[in-house]
Amino acid sequence: MTTPSPSAAVLVIGDEVLSGRTQDTNTNTIARFLSALGIDLIEARVIGDDVDRIVAVLNELRAAYDYVFTTGGIGPTHDDMTADAVARAFGVALPEHPDALAILQKRYGDDFNAARRRMARIPQGGSLIANPVTDAPGFQIGNVFVMAGVPKIMTAMLEDVAPRLRTGAVVHSRTLRVTGVGEGSVADILAAAAKANRELSFGSYPFGHGSVGEIGTNLVVRGRDESAVQAALDRLAADLTTAGVDAVPI
Amino acid sequence: MTTPSPSAAVLVIGDEVLSGRTQDTNTNTIARFLSALGIDLIEARVIGDDVDRIVAVLNELRAAYDYVFTTGGIGPTHDDMTADAVARAFGVALPEHPDALAILQKRYGDDFNAARRRMARIPQGGSLIANPVTDAPGFQIGNVFVMAGVPKIMTAMLEDVAPRLRTGAVVHSRTLRVTGVGEGSVADILAAAAKANRELSFGSYPFGHGSVGEIGTNLVVRGRDESAVQAALDRLAADLTTAGVDAVPI
Repeated sequence: MTTPSPSAAVLVIGDEVLSGRTQDTNTNTIARFLSALGIDLIEARVIGDDVDRIVAVLNELRAAYDYVFTTGGIGPTHDDMTADAVARAFGVALPEHPDALAILQKRYGDDFNAARRRMARIPQGGSLIANPVTDAPGFQIGNVFVMAGVPKIMTAMLEDVAPRLRTGAVVHSRTLRVTGVGEGSVADILAAAAKANRELSFGSYPFGHGSVGEIGTNLVVRGRDESAVQAALDRLAADLTTAGVDAVPI
Repeated sequence: MTTPSPSAAVLVIGDEVLSGRTQDTNTNTIARFLSALGIDLIEARVIGDDVDRIVAVLNELRAAYDYVFTTGGIGPTHDDMTADAVARAFGVALPEHPDALAILQKRYGDDFNAARRRMARIPQGGSLIANPVTDAPGFQIGNVFVMAGVPKIMTAMLEDVAPRLRTGAVVHSRTLRVTGVGEGSVADILAAAAKANRELSFGSYPFGHGSVGEIGTNLVVRGRDESAVQAALDRLAADLTTAGVDAVPI
């Protein structure tokens, strides 16, 4: 009997994502990071810079999943309210963390003003997440990891998050590239493969829509048993070839 | 007294987004589409290809918001289960829609097989959303708009969705580009502007992190009263100039 893989949610915080000003890429970065660790990302949400909403959603997600990863809202400006919201969600105070204060004082020197000092406030009981790009730390409290919204900084913070996570069996993924026919032409063969291998997941991701360019679909087999994934892919490729369909592993 | 602007949620459906295989761009496309119509996008979610979960989340979102826009899961393969889930969420049957059937028969001709015929199933009472790219339609039922996951198709479907929406007062946005200092250096001035204009929203989006390249931040003022937005931006620019900070409208 194996331990279930850990579950996770991503919570993207920022009006700029909901207004369309900013294309979120952090969810994808975290999704790939978690895949490599065998942690199942079950959902992702985007909400605005609203303390009440952050508190409500965070409390929902941290109760539902093993881990929650937030991005955004931990800078020095008035619209950065994630730390306040996290402290309130956990029902703890938001004092200045001595290590965070030291890091920020060192970085900013004479430019260390009251606004930047806000970034030293860490919910009571939280531990810092290192920021090797601009120094101002993120933090972990309980099963919640609070990271910056700027993609370069968020990505760098994951390095310090990784060792704190319980990992699971990695999900292996193999892809067959089918060309010359639309996905509807191979749907039956794919469905039969899925039915015969219920412990694996089978997806179809078409490309080349419309009237120009090559059409086809990428068939993806995923599962935690690598040899089972490979065997299912080989069998699927053979079935497609028998049906006269071009299918190449990529 | 003005009517409140309509509210909306986006629901992205697809294992491939949660696994990190696919970078979602549909949320951003819909966010910009809604901004232009004066409809407030309040949240976006990504969930996997799981009927029970789609049903539960869809019922939560359609009760909470004026409009829900879903993307993904309406193709011909076994992992396309959005129509099934939407029908179940609304408690209606999922018969073949005669117009959808005609559209698909015409497109596929001799290649119109059982898998492709699944795409003609539309929840009872739903109306079709035209797909000018690959013909297979999306659909609207109640306040829910069900669209394809392929970005090119989803974007094209919005053309047929737009005339069905109640619009609101458009949110106007103006940006000041501050260079040479980090956002922490202008946080106090920005906070004062926000405090003096509570009907507007003020955001700060820094750029040029780390040790290379120009640093600075984009200060964004948003609101439904265009002249108030412009006046607040002009005043903010003047305050920054007085403080010796380079700030240029962009």
